[in-house]
Amino acid sequence: MVKLFEKGLPEKAVLRKLESKLKQDFTYSSGRILGSMCTRPHEFARYVHMKCLEKNLGDPGLFCAATQLEQEAIGMLGSLLSHPKAYGHIVSGGTEANILALWAARNLAKNKRHEVVAPVSAHCSLDKAANLLGLKLIKVKLNDRFQMDIKEAEKTVTEKTVAIVGVAGTTGLGAVDPIHELSEIALAHGLYFHVDAAFGGFVLPFLEELGFNVPDFDFRVPGVCSVTVDPHKMGLAPIPAGGILFRNEEMMRSISTSVPYLAGGGTDHTTILGTRSGASAITVWGLLMHLGRQGYRGVVGRCMRLTSKLVEGIRQINGISLKTIPTLNIVGITSNELDIELVAGELRRMGWAVSLFSSYIRVVVMPHVRLSHIEHFLEDLKGTVEKLGG
Amino acid sequence: MVKLFEKGLPEKAVLRKLESKLKQDFTYSSGRILGSMCTRPHEFARYVHMKCLEKNLGDPGLFCAATQLEQEAIGMLGSLLSHPKAYGHIVSGGTEANILALWAARNLAKNKRHEVVAPVSAHCSLDKAANLLGLKLIKVKLNDRFQMDIKEAEKTVTEKTVAIVGVAGTTGLGAVDPIHELSEIALAHGLYFHVDAAFGGFVLPFLEELGFNVPDFDFRVPGVCSVTVDPHKMGLAPIPAGGILFRNEEMMRSISTSVPYLAGGGTDHTTILGTRSGASAITVWGLLMHLGRQGYRGVVGRCMRLTSKLVEGIRQINGISLKTIPTLNIVGITSNELDIELVAGELRRMGWAVSLFSSYIRVVVMPHVRLSHIEHFLEDLKGTVEKLGG
Repeated sequence: MVKLFEKGLPEKAVLRKLESKLKQDFTYSSGRILGSMCTRPHEFARYVHMKCLEKNLGDPGLFCAATQLEQEAIGMLGSLLSHPKAYGHIVSGGTEANILALWAARNLAKNKRHEVVAPVSAHCSLDKAANLLGLKLIKVKLNDRFQMDIKEAEKTVTEKTVAIVGVAGTTGLGAVDPIHELSEIALAHGLYFHVDAAFGGFVLPFLEELGFNVPDFDFRVPGVCSVTVDPHKMGLAPIPAGGILFRNEEMMRSISTSVPYLAGGGTDHTTILGTRSGASAITVWGLLMHLGRQGYRGVVGRCMRLTSKLVEGIRQINGISLKTIPTLNIVGITSNELDIELVAGELRRMGWAVSLFSSYIRVVVMPHVRLSHIEHFLEDLKGTVEKLGG
Repeated sequence: MVKLFEKGLPEKAVLRKLESKLKQDFTYSSGRILGSMCTRPHEFARYVHMKCLEKNLGDPGLFCAATQLEQEAIGMLGSLLSHPKAYGHIVSGGTEANILALWAARNLAKNKRHEVVAPVSAHCSLDKAANLLGLKLIKVKLNDRFQMDIKEAEKTVTEKTVAIVGVAGTTGLGAVDPIHELSEIALAHGLYFHVDAAFGGFVLPFLEELGFNVPDFDFRVPGVCSVTVDPHKMGLAPIPAGGILFRNEEMMRSISTSVPYLAGGGTDHTTILGTRSGASAITVWGLLMHLGRQGYRGVVGRCMRLTSKLVEGIRQINGISLKTIPTLNIVGITSNELDIELVAGELRRMGWAVSLFSSYIRVVVMPHVRLSHIEHFLEDLKGTVEKLGG
């Protein structure tokens, strides 16, 4: 238990203390973090972020330029997701974005409907959103490609349903739900339809440009009301930087809170946060401006090439297999012979920070991962499987 | 409408664009921002923040040290608020903190109670929290010292009440509600009692140390279940840095969401955000370590001396008066003769970013404000009043 001292320590003493403590943390540069959807922020992003640390988007009248840059960033994200006129915000992350979407759905419904239909693969932020908003999340099973089962989804929609959530790039395996089919169900029943593309939103458009066969998942699909897309995942922005895009202003306005007293003049907030980081939004603007489609395509292309290396390597190890063919730079490793939890435990003991799901290990090949890291990991994985198998 | 370019711009071109745009924004260093509760972050805070930009508290197993430093920061804030063993988090701001408190209150109640009793002076984040959580905020009128009226509060509590919220440092006038009396009502009815000290929490303890007569508002008061205290207001930390402290673990755990799959191992989140800034928490830790009570006392003392200067100046201007004697570094300026909205409008045209409430102008004497700014402002205020009065 640390108490607030009467007399503070000199800056250098604080930094010494800090540096010695922070040695315990994993770092992205070590290549050991293979199970996170976050990564080392782009150097240029760090620089821009630092310059703008005092900007507060909660008081847009004081920071008009920052506010305009946020809206330009939303325009750029909108153009990436086939709707340059989308409304929205750079928010604190995918969780805030998903809550905002379900909050809008609930407020727009203006009735007693309170069930949300989502796949079992939906991110736990949707459980959180449902608890917060007093909604009930009904989880639909997956088909053999780990997408929401459409027949089941259809059966699950009732007169109590207020919204459907589809995922474009699931947390576990990077699967993309059948967004067109879900859109049709939503349109047929007049339901709000949200797409959680927190991870996939910064990958799928570039995969499409690279010639991959990518299903529509964004505002091209007519029933889609809102999309979550997180710059602080594959967008290379520092935390916090999530994104929420709404198809129209009415949807965004449904969650509005009036803030009349601000120094910059009265306004309405349509985010959960009040005071909020202008640095985050401007950094996203700066990164999108600097990297362009070409830059992000390069990043995504490189991650996918390393993903292929990893996939090839896994196929050459007896005793383990792929959970499914990866759609994105997310790889699930499973086994029919070994207890995958034991494999994960052994890998963790060797210093690999991988994710463990109920029947597989997840590796996310983020931009901080290099070929040498993948090769080293495959060696240790092979050794572990041989050890546990023998 | 700005679309994502195919080819990005060089860093220098982006920075040129950025710098030219940002000229429109107000800056704290100009001294023109006199109506915000935010301020220029401390230089040391900027440095620490920058160093820790990749830390993610959403995955504590990866960032054990960052997580430990967050808990040390909570310990220090707890010791500041008379409960060194408080549970809590460095969160995105006062809004998240207030939502977490009401969310806990609602979840702990496990019944149909859904009304929250708060003063009319409560911050609009409580309206937002109520809307989000499906609660009804019942607002109690104020006494002549702009505090929640206790008799009215008592009458407003019914079998539908789930929580009471008191404010220690209201947004408008910096008033401190009668926390002891509200605590007694809460205890008598078995209600959750939250104190919003987003602003006052970093001022009142230091005022007490400086010899001011400060009423108890923190965990010394037995019925207090949770306190909001924001480092990104008077704590000199960069945005985002709010604080929520709970009296015990059970309260915090009532809003827990399980996150089993993380690279650093499964955990529970007890914040709204999932992925969240480690830089924010570490920066708060660093600032508290570096400034100590002495450092903050200096900051608060200086703000209060300038507040006195402002108060004296206002008293010497015919036609305007103080809305009330300031408790904190927040000053309300009103008039019996002039339309205060016109005065505010004129001041804003002259470049002063002041806040406008329904019957008064609010000035917050934050750490970025200097004596020369106050003197200049008083001159312009006097000129405006004379102009409008004549």
